[in-house]
Amino acid sequence: MAAIHAAVAGASGYAGGEVLRLLLGHPEVRIGALTGNSNAGARLGGLQPHLPQLADRVLLPTGTDALAGHDVVFLALPHGQSAAVAAELGEDVLVVDCGADFRLKDAAAWERFYGSSHAGTWPYGLPELPGARDALRGAKRIAVPGCYPTAVSLALFPAYAAGLAGPEAVVVAASGTSGAGKAAKPHLLGSEVMGAMSPYGVGGGHRHTPEMVQNLSAAAGEPVTVSFTPTLAPMPRGILATCSAKARPGVTADAVRAAYEKAFAGEPFARLLPEGQWPSTASVLGSNTALVQVALDEAAGRIVAISAIDNLAKGTAGGAVQSMNIALGLPEELGLPATGVAP
Amino acid sequence: MAAIHAAVAGASGYAGGEVLRLLLGHPEVRIGALTGNSNAGARLGGLQPHLPQLADRVLLPTGTDALAGHDVVFLALPHGQSAAVAAELGEDVLVVDCGADFRLKDAAAWERFYGSSHAGTWPYGLPELPGARDALRGAKRIAVPGCYPTAVSLALFPAYAAGLAGPEAVVVAASGTSGAGKAAKPHLLGSEVMGAMSPYGVGGGHRHTPEMVQNLSAAAGEPVTVSFTPTLAPMPRGILATCSAKARPGVTADAVRAAYEKAFAGEPFARLLPEGQWPSTASVLGSNTALVQVALDEAAGRIVAISAIDNLAKGTAGGAVQSMNIALGLPEELGLPATGVAP
Amino acid sequence: MAAIHAAVAGASGYAGGEVLRLLLGHPEVRIGALTGNSNAGARLGGLQPHLPQLADRVLLPTGTDALAGHDVVFLALPHGQSAAVAAELGEDVLVVDCGADFRLKDAAAWERFYGSSHAGTWPYGLPELPGARDALRGAKRIAVPGCYPTAVSLALFPAYAAGLAGPEAVVVAASGTSGAGKAAKPHLLGSEVMGAMSPYGVGGGHRHTPEMVQNLSAAAGEPVTVSFTPTLAPMPRGILATCSAKARPGVTADAVRAAYEKAFAGEPFARLLPEGQWPSTASVLGSNTALVQVALDEAAGRIVAISAIDNLAKGTAGGAVQSMNIALGLPEELGLPATGVAP
Amino acid sequence: MAAIHAAVAGASGYAGGEVLRLLLGHPEVRIGALTGNSNAGARLGGLQPHLPQLADRVLLPTGTDALAGHDVVFLALPHGQSAAVAAELGEDVLVVDCGADFRLKDAAAWERFYGSSHAGTWPYGLPELPGARDALRGAKRIAVPGCYPTAVSLALFPAYAAGLAGPEAVVVAASGTSGAGKAAKPHLLGSEVMGAMSPYGVGGGHRHTPEMVQNLSAAAGEPVTVSFTPTLAPMPRGILATCSAKARPGVTADAVRAAYEKAFAGEPFARLLPEGQWPSTASVLGSNTALVQVALDEAAGRIVAISAIDNLAKGTAGGAVQSMNIALGLPEELGLPATGVAP
Repeated sequence: MAAIHAAVAGASGYAGGEVLRLLLGHPEVRIGALTGNSNAGARLGGLQPHLPQLADRVLLPTGTDALAGHDVVFLALPHGQSAAVAAELGEDVLVVDCGADFRLKDAAAWERFYGSSHAGTWPYGLPELPGARDALRGAKRIAVPGCYPTAVSLALFPAYAAGLAGPEAVVVAASGTSGAGKAAKPHLLGSEVMGAMSPYGVGGGHRHTPEMVQNLSAAAGEPVTVSFTPTLAPMPRGILATCSAKARPGVTADAVRAAYEKAFAGEPFARLLPEGQWPSTASVLGSNTALVQVALDEAAGRIVAISAIDNLAKGTAGGAVQSMNIALGLPEELGLPATGVAP
Repeated sequence: MAAIHAAVAGASGYAGGEVLRLLLGHPEVRIGALTGNSNAGARLGGLQPHLPQLADRVLLPTGTDALAGHDVVFLALPHGQSAAVAAELGEDVLVVDCGADFRLKDAAAWERFYGSSHAGTWPYGLPELPGARDALRGAKRIAVPGCYPTAVSLALFPAYAAGLAGPEAVVVAASGTSGAGKAAKPHLLGSEVMGAMSPYGVGGGHRHTPEMVQNLSAAAGEPVTVSFTPTLAPMPRGILATCSAKARPGVTADAVRAAYEKAFAGEPFARLLPEGQWPSTASVLGSNTALVQVALDEAAGRIVAISAIDNLAKGTAGGAVQSMNIALGLPEELGLPATGVAP
Repeated sequence: MAAIHAAVAGASGYAGGEVLRLLLGHPEVRIGALTGNSNAGARLGGLQPHLPQLADRVLLPTGTDALAGHDVVFLALPHGQSAAVAAELGEDVLVVDCGADFRLKDAAAWERFYGSSHAGTWPYGLPELPGARDALRGAKRIAVPGCYPTAVSLALFPAYAAGLAGPEAVVVAASGTSGAGKAAKPHLLGSEVMGAMSPYGVGGGHRHTPEMVQNLSAAAGEPVTVSFTPTLAPMPRGILATCSAKARPGVTADAVRAAYEKAFAGEPFARLLPEGQWPSTASVLGSNTALVQVALDEAAGRIVAISAIDNLAKGTAGGAVQSMNIALGLPEELGLPATGVAP
Repeated sequence: MAAIHAAVAGASGYAGGEVLRLLLGHPEVRIGALTGNSNAGARLGGLQPHLPQLADRVLLPTGTDALAGHDVVFLALPHGQSAAVAAELGEDVLVVDCGADFRLKDAAAWERFYGSSHAGTWPYGLPELPGARDALRGAKRIAVPGCYPTAVSLALFPAYAAGLAGPEAVVVAASGTSGAGKAAKPHLLGSEVMGAMSPYGVGGGHRHTPEMVQNLSAAAGEPVTVSFTPTLAPMPRGILATCSAKARPGVTADAVRAAYEKAFAGEPFARLLPEGQWPSTASVLGSNTALVQVALDEAAGRIVAISAIDNLAKGTAGGAVQSMNIALGLPEELGLPATGVAP
């Protein structure tokens, strides 16, 4: 066992560190090369002190020299760098990209939001979406969804897939600060973020918007718009996505509940909570579980669906490992914690 | 000077403590009787250790014995208790109620959300709303707005007053935990709330909803619905209200900005930020300032307005003192901090 | 496999929840009865929402009816309740007590600090201490150490065991709020603890003091006193223990380092960090790892040793499972995360 | 009134921002020039959004051009830069230096800890220390103490001044992250510091140590050593200093209490709490108050004294304004909040 040899490119960042944390608990994976850019040559122990088993590992420069010869390569690189690295890895190597490069189908949307030419589209690593799991089986290239699109798509796709919701979604999501990465910027200092709820990218500017539009439109079978406001919350991890859309005429609370029960039946990592219990980010810290709840606001005529995930786990590295398991034909839950670290 | 003799009923709670903090900095106010219920007989020093000047004050039982003979009485009592206390105070005494009892005009809405008979309607202590300041001048009874309605009304009334927004508002607000009060409940423990974003009262159930509906409908001159989702954020204080509504056809970003500039021109405590700068709760900690920003999301066709306040200051005690100043003919800004404690 | 049948008494509290979180990841354990007191009859899903796999489990009343017939019973009960429960369980059942009842050898110290008669002394579940691991092998009764004594003993025992430190230790420790338990008390509200560092039990009054004295005196082979000041820190989990003692004359930094390297050589869960790297509670969140560092302050003539643990994991439930593994002859690391959840 | 014209050099940092926040509430001060280095030319509104009244002020380059012509100049500059700036300001200008440059009397200690030549020694802005208030009256140059030395000196000087404590002090202090300043460093990111208690400068290396030694030795009339361990706590502001020293033979709890009562009698900003009540940083947020408590640990033979301050207020800017008031012959409390912002 432990027959799968995995490399991680970008091992000093938050996404790379979380991939490593999960792989350390995966019974079939052996961790191979770790790479970095500015941190190449450094020991991992000083960069990721929560991973004591790997403390003495030294980061190699990101590139084919380090990454070749593995069964799986996880890319946790800045946007725009994945295509070049992936191109040098063989077609038989499973490449799991935690970046944005291969998520979008619409090249124009990519270019508008990212300002560079579109690299392509890979099978999408959110297996709970209709048809997504099948597309992942045997795949050799996987685009891991963004953290916000993971939370928002899980909250709203059942309503759209069942034809219950109007085509204009409104989403306000709160994210822990790790979603902004490890680069030192003044507005991300602890002194600034503790005690602070602060919006950013308001008015449609966030790069995750077209990915939500893509997922919800696919579920609805018609174009869906998303008014998306992300906010930074004073916590290291977690996303709470509060999502709503007009209920189509005649939609009942029972119909809404039934659609969500059907959508999540049998899903190991996406759970509809019992009626009356609402999800909290605290319940999913460190876990690959998404908790979802939904209600019909009769006075306002809206379906309100809320999801909680760990942005680094289910929202990034957990989704990546879950997709890897599916691609490789392993049990989907293997090595992935469904329990959160609480309180 | 310091000729105004003020009593505070409910001095051991968060709202009462904040009223006292602000009154201690008010040059015209002398603090008289402090009352409590279960804490009657206790020294304030053990209950509000941040108010060292009042540490040796002893709480009296709430009632006429303690409260009579003051110029101003602030009520910071549980909902439903204000009417009986106010009835025993003379008509020449200024009574400022931080509770909900006298905020709503619609008796049926009161009864539906609070389950008791409606006590009446007092002048509304949000002077920035159209016509509200005039109604406060010389008033002897003031209903201080709820903290969420303060934030939401300030964010959206300019759009409605200018006829720019459609009648269905969607609001997601994050509040610090002090909004839930000082009663010890397991889900409010520090262990539970740190790291947690969690919704509550989803689907139209929160008691502050009819107050928002009342304020925005008045500004719009037509019925407005509000889909309101409050969430608890891991911070002691602050509200960030993310509010949106469909832009009416032909509305431009310039028209939106002009409406907001007009609405807040000359306001000492409600400030429209420069374009591109978004408000954070961290900027208003301990201050009576509301910071507002607005944008037009062209792709989604929505006006997005966001406000940040301190729920205990501008959202409760600051609004109360600001309204008192107006009612008594004092300079509106007297004794009120416009600066936040940051970082 | 999964041949060990385990029950947890006190499953609704923080310690019980953490035992369950770890047991869910233990490949040899099958989770049997869960019990509670005031929560008997309730579903676990509403009480421990981070454990979705057990959401439908119903708590039974704590007692023999529920607990009999298991291979291992974990007790996570209020102090003073373990003895009666344990007495009714057979001598062939492994009973692991997360409470204080059986930690102290000195009956007089017990009675002075706990005010009741001493129940006895069980093998002590801190295997890193000299001789402790051997005493745990094959044991049927285990007293899990207190969270503070775990952190403090690991930080200082090497200095005492090597004869390097004077007999008067000074300890200041910061703990996350979960150490105070799940009972709703006003001073533990999120509003109170966020932004707050606050001491308690100052001047020798904390019940964990005699346990530290016991451990350090045993390591030193002479009586050691401990001046212990615990403080509550604004975080849910974690203990940082800053410990110091006079260096005995002639002690060098090299001698100190050598003693610590020897003490932790080969330990799977207690790690001496490389020189110059200091431990942080953030690195051990959710993990069973203790991180330790030590320095010699030449100017002040003191050995300063600092440890970081997760109070609920290594400090309670992790220590319990680690000790269970030893007692049952399983690999000591089985099912226990050595990685922290960071950032 | 408002006859005092004050400039602030370093207005974009945390210390400078806090000086401005306090000066905005000072009835006798008019705020003049604001300067910065890398931020020269920028509007203050984007840098200090909590100071809306000054949002349109533009930062000037630090230097005589901007700073000349004021009655008071506050320096909030990196260590080592104050002497050159001060030298160009007239001897009749009151210069209040929030930096370290003029705090130490021992030139050798300065050079050892700061690695540059000693600039000199100015009257020391901690008026509660014996003799310090008199030295500040009429002074034209003031060295504001470091934040840690403020907290530690207030906690321990009464014991030393009364001859109750042995000459070896042990101090463990927790500080909010603003103490580390506004420069963006990875270990100060919110993602890193939330949930983290972490020590630094262990073993005598912190630059504030010689300042504590200076103050406590002066109070004791003999050399005192300080074993000082600072830790970073997950909160933006506040210092909790836990300090202890051996009680001299025969010292009683009554004698200790009497010494502290005497030391703080009549002090407006340093308060000894009633017996049994311990200070919390949450009580002093934004205030110039220091809260102190002391106990005698009979078993360990130590006096344990704990203080809580706001590191930016009493620990920096509040101490600066308090000292300015004394130097200028104003009422010492003028414009300074004694109340904390809590919860």
